[in-house]
Amino acid sequence: MAKKDKKSAVSVGVLGSGSFATAIVKMLQENSKMVHWCVRNEFVKGAIELRKHNPTYLQSVMFNTRYLNITTDINQLVSACDVIILATPSIYLSDSLEKMNCDYSNKLFVSAIKGIVPKHNDIVAHYLRDQFQIGFRNQAVIAGPCHAEEVAMERLSYLTVATVEEENAQKLKDLFSSSYIKVSTSSDILGNEYSAILKNIYAIGAGMASGLGYGDNFQAVYVSNAIREMEIFLEAIYEAPRDVNESAYLGDLLVTAYSLFSRNRSLGNLVGKGYTVKSAIQSMNMVAEGYYAAASIYNTAKEKGLKLPIISTVYNVLYEGKNVEKQFKKLTAKLN
Amino acid sequence: MAKKDKKSAVSVGVLGSGSFATAIVKMLQENSKMVHWCVRNEFVKGAIELRKHNPTYLQSVMFNTRYLNITTDINQLVSACDVIILATPSIYLSDSLEKMNCDYSNKLFVSAIKGIVPKHNDIVAHYLRDQFQIGFRNQAVIAGPCHAEEVAMERLSYLTVATVEEENAQKLKDLFSSSYIKVSTSSDILGNEYSAILKNIYAIGAGMASGLGYGDNFQAVYVSNAIREMEIFLEAIYEAPRDVNESAYLGDLLVTAYSLFSRNRSLGNLVGKGYTVKSAIQSMNMVAEGYYAAASIYNTAKEKGLKLPIISTVYNVLYEGKNVEKQFKKLTAKLN
Repeated sequence: MAKKDKKSAVSVGVLGSGSFATAIVKMLQENSKMVHWCVRNEFVKGAIELRKHNPTYLQSVMFNTRYLNITTDINQLVSACDVIILATPSIYLSDSLEKMNCDYSNKLFVSAIKGIVPKHNDIVAHYLRDQFQIGFRNQAVIAGPCHAEEVAMERLSYLTVATVEEENAQKLKDLFSSSYIKVSTSSDILGNEYSAILKNIYAIGAGMASGLGYGDNFQAVYVSNAIREMEIFLEAIYEAPRDVNESAYLGDLLVTAYSLFSRNRSLGNLVGKGYTVKSAIQSMNMVAEGYYAAASIYNTAKEKGLKLPIISTVYNVLYEGKNVEKQFKKLTAKLN
Repeated sequence: MAKKDKKSAVSVGVLGSGSFATAIVKMLQENSKMVHWCVRNEFVKGAIELRKHNPTYLQSVMFNTRYLNITTDINQLVSACDVIILATPSIYLSDSLEKMNCDYSNKLFVSAIKGIVPKHNDIVAHYLRDQFQIGFRNQAVIAGPCHAEEVAMERLSYLTVATVEEENAQKLKDLFSSSYIKVSTSSDILGNEYSAILKNIYAIGAGMASGLGYGDNFQAVYVSNAIREMEIFLEAIYEAPRDVNESAYLGDLLVTAYSLFSRNRSLGNLVGKGYTVKSAIQSMNMVAEGYYAAASIYNTAKEKGLKLPIISTVYNVLYEGKNVEKQFKKLTAKLN
């Protein structure tokens, strides 16, 4: 456990002003004297500075703004920080990072993003490496299970930080550990990132099943098939001595697939109830990361020759205009 | 899939008249012309014959009583049947079976019981073998995830039948498969029985956590630790090439630990909220199997030198009068 009376000497900043970004700033303020925060625009910056909370997300979380350095300039954020936590929705990440022209060669970039970067059709770890020459040694991944809403209420939550460098793992553990956050470490950067992406697709499917009227007995079978599918995918992408029943994989899947508040599950639920995919997406205010991920992961699985019945089912409904009821009927015969 | 127009030639009967026994009779009536049913007493027999449903459990399930042979005599049941499904609460099993004095040497006994036989402090498979010389070849286990209430509504559910003999597996598959029941097979009799017992203890703990105010993030971490604990226990008891993420293990754990209707979870929830263990038990009408199981499994784990923090926590609260809040506080430091 980090000593609570000693603030971390590492300078840390957060990119993004959504609910998880807001929760991360709250977590970091427990251990850091100053937290740097790059938000979407001047309106959000002004609103937080004025009201001392994010007006759009986790409104109950009050910040001591004296110890927040809020900016809208990614270069200002990166220049000021040793550690930069990326926490935008994946579709907005490139908008920010493409403006980066400062020296970032010795910075640690930590992805809390659970989605595919659409323009490059790839995961964040690959995007950072290929577009910005940020090697895996300068990267980390933070995984849940961690609903931002529960962090706001300071309900005990566990995070996993995945890094290649042991030293970085300790640095992040010290930054995040608090009375309500426990941190485990992992060396499986890619596995943690992919599993966080996959779980959103499985949550869409869980929502579809629920919308179609399948019950708890089926949901349990569905999730137990989903974690086995996930293991097949992860092994094919990146073989590593991982146990998919650890919290970062299974736990994160559970909190998303069983949560009535998950955006991805909600999207699936609407589709299961008979909404068209387009109208379901339009009716939601927030981005359902799993929607974009489904296409990318489906294609990756196809390239690798993997048979992933759940991913295929979700993909067929979302992108191929297939009938959700018939697709699930077929799927039920493949599960066990 | 069994052909629906062809009734099974196997004579089958059910011992027990609780909710799962009632659901099993319903499932069997899909494929068997006649189902034999040994219920608790003449009152229950008369009530079912008169009202055509079980007056106490799953009242919505109507039976065609022309094809039910209801008895209160275990010897009549066993004599009439090739296959006997045991579905009493575990604490009542010995009361019935000890009256058995007919020839049962070629019968198949199928346990749908998820608990320890208290008088012998052992699982059903061992109890049948040791007390009645019923070998594993004449035994089978039926595992969920399967809430009886959802079977009543004919919501799609999956069962796993575990047998040593392939032929028996097929027999049971034919007896149970229907438009709303899919059946998988397994050769892991002991693993299936133990996991069904363990999941009840984990459900008590899940209820305790919920009663104490822990949220969904913690619950996900808790369950992902529980399945890993279960794997350690099963491997120590009976090493087999099993995947604990199959539906009979993980699925059954999920449906119980996440269900607000689980008796075991409810028991834990009351204790977590501050009820004494005694008053929590008294306030419930139904038997929480996990209560008895906790002591037996705890002792088995101790004998084997296994460290199972969740089982120990539940045991300490239920049997050692330890404070539930403090015990969970300690437990949170051991999970990851």
